Amino acid sequence: MEAIPRGLKGVVVADTELGDVRGEEGFYHYRQYSAPELAEKRSFEDVAHLLIEGSLPGPAQRAGFAAEYRPLRHLPASVVALLPPVAAGCPVPLTCLRTLLSHVAGVEAMPAIVDADAPVLRANLLRLSALAPTLVAAIHRTAQGLELVPPRDDLGEAANYLWMINGEEPDPDRSRALDQYLVLALDHGFNASTFTARVVASTGADAGAALVAALGALSGPRHGGSPSRVLDMFDAIGEPERAEAWITDAVTRGARIMGFGHPVYKTADPRSKMLRGIAEQFGGPLVDFAVEVERTVERVLADLKPGGELHTNVEYYAAVVMHLCGLPCALFTPTFAVSRIVGWGAQVLEQAKDSAIIRPSARYVGPPPPQPVES
Amino acid sequence: MEAIPRGLKGVVVADTELGDVRGEEGFYHYRQYSAPELAEKRSFEDVAHLLIEGSLPGPAQRAGFAAEYRPLRHLPASVVALLPPVAAGCPVPLTCLRTLLSHVAGVEAMPAIVDADAPVLRANLLRLSALAPTLVAAIHRTAQGLELVPPRDDLGEAANYLWMINGEEPDPDRSRALDQYLVLALDHGFNASTFTARVVASTGADAGAALVAALGALSGPRHGGSPSRVLDMFDAIGEPERAEAWITDAVTRGARIMGFGHPVYKTADPRSKMLRGIAEQFGGPLVDFAVEVERTVERVLADLKPGGELHTNVEYYAAVVMHLCGLPCALFTPTFAVSRIVGWGAQVLEQAKDSAIIRPSARYVGPPPPQPVES
Repeated sequence: MEAIPRGLKGVVVADTELGDVRGEEGFYHYRQYSAPELAEKRSFEDVAHLLIEGSLPGPAQRAGFAAEYRPLRHLPASVVALLPPVAAGCPVPLTCLRTLLSHVAGVEAMPAIVDADAPVLRANLLRLSALAPTLVAAIHRTAQGLELVPPRDDLGEAANYLWMINGEEPDPDRSRALDQYLVLALDHGFNASTFTARVVASTGADAGAALVAALGALSGPRHGGSPSRVLDMFDAIGEPERAEAWITDAVTRGARIMGFGHPVYKTADPRSKMLRGIAEQFGGPLVDFAVEVERTVERVLADLKPGGELHTNVEYYAAVVMHLCGLPCALFTPTFAVSRIVGWGAQVLEQAKDSAIIRPSARYVGPPPPQPVES
Repeated sequence: MEAIPRGLKGVVVADTELGDVRGEEGFYHYRQYSAPELAEKRSFEDVAHLLIEGSLPGPAQRAGFAAEYRPLRHLPASVVALLPPVAAGCPVPLTCLRTLLSHVAGVEAMPAIVDADAPVLRANLLRLSALAPTLVAAIHRTAQGLELVPPRDDLGEAANYLWMINGEEPDPDRSRALDQYLVLALDHGFNASTFTARVVASTGADAGAALVAALGALSGPRHGGSPSRVLDMFDAIGEPERAEAWITDAVTRGARIMGFGHPVYKTADPRSKMLRGIAEQFGGPLVDFAVEVERTVERVLADLKPGGELHTNVEYYAAVVMHLCGLPCALFTPTFAVSRIVGWGAQVLEQAKDSAIIRPSARYVGPPPPQPVES
């Protein structure tokens, strides 16, 4: 037995062809392509195809994938029945999503990974991925006392998602902006939720078990993925003129500035850079405010903590973009999950090729056993 | 970055005071006590107290723990409403348990671990642990079309569990035998489900997220914990006289013999030894059959695969004991989970003291990026 770094930091536990994050360079990629370049040039469905199937689709493959994927969005009746009690009882949409996905995997009797061949596992993962946006929209509308809006097979990922949430034909710019965000959020190296999905997959459990576990990990505040906290901070700051005083106070108190800092990126987060560009195309007071706060934070930090580079992470402009696209704050993290679940699916498919269970050891550090037990 | 053994085998990722497994010696312990000795001399609630609180209780602590723990067994109304659609739609009780525990954590608004102080986290974990047996019994009775049997605060863990499942006052020998099994199943080193619980806890997610994820890992066939497969094997063998031919054929074909072999124990599994003793106290044709099959398997393997020691694992006599105690096969794995969830709770409490997220790395092995993306 050998001791290794705390939290397994920097320890390589798997080989992957799905992508990587180069923190020093501010670069990340899906397979052999730059993720931001994919977001610029391709749709969410194209990039989902890249991750799941291994290649970017041509026109015929694109149509074939859409024809397979989009009909999988429709809710089974047994889930529709569960929506009112789940959404009424549980105020956190991400937790409702976890509960309902767990139920779908059970209702549809998804087989254990060790008993499923690759096409069956792929079909199960696609099914759960395709249902996730429908479930998030349904949870939201049920909680709001609104009728459900069924998915539309003629719309791409983001357009259909906005349609199901708002019940209105979304404008193409907003659909495109959200689709780009969803591409950027698909995967991001070997983070804790991705690792969780792979650990559970390594036990041979079904696709639902792996994705439900990953959703749990994603909900952890240390994981990140809670962009709504950024808008909460904007609310707390209130006016652009108050930004400097508010941030100085926060930094002095050692409070965390929401949407800043990342464990891997030592330079600007490439997701943040692209999302800022998308936000600036829309413009408006929120975007101006966000840019002003970003500048102020960087200036205050340079003054108070010289040498400690701190940049916006994905959450910062993701919050702005999602708000501009018409998503309510409560759905920011679930929207991140709707994208990432496809990435987890690709990770589970890759893990399923390895027959080794991921089962490390612990070192016992308590008093020596066996001490006698008194009856 | 350094490469490490496949599946993290033998890699120490945490320090623990909760216990350990010494595979070479056929010994495992909870804190400083032999686990089988605890099962012999103490109740499930006493040993739960040991794991959660850190010490075996004296009489006053025992009464205090029962007074706190047993009232937590009662189902909230919002879960009662969910039972019929969940149990009717999903045939696997362990999956129903996962779905319903996920919902409870949401309904009761359990806070993120990073936001919860230790007493709140402890209370959340106790609540979910105390509800698990009630949920399993309720899932079973709902699926059978039977009225629910509410928990009884005057009964210990196993007696109350049998009461809720069968609706009859259990006989003391069966309650005691099942209680001993539950003690033996509480914890067992750093297996994949325990590790999963700790990874999710390390993100700072709530108690429900960690336990739900662990349930998913437990459901994996490579994890083990499916004792009902042993009775399926007995059914397939049919008659004691057919055991030798059946097993010889299975070994020759390379098929897995259910209830035999363990990745850590190189000698007899101490849980199996104790459960065999418990089964033999009951006696009867099933016990005789199980002992006969065990002998036959060991003899056939010694002939066909000399040198390869293979002994019964926990599943083998656990199946026999659970059957003798009146549990239906479909509840064998959920019953294991009902015990282990308390162990996961203790592991989550321990993990919560560490602020480091568990976030390893992967090595990218695909084609070099960035390749140009065609629009």
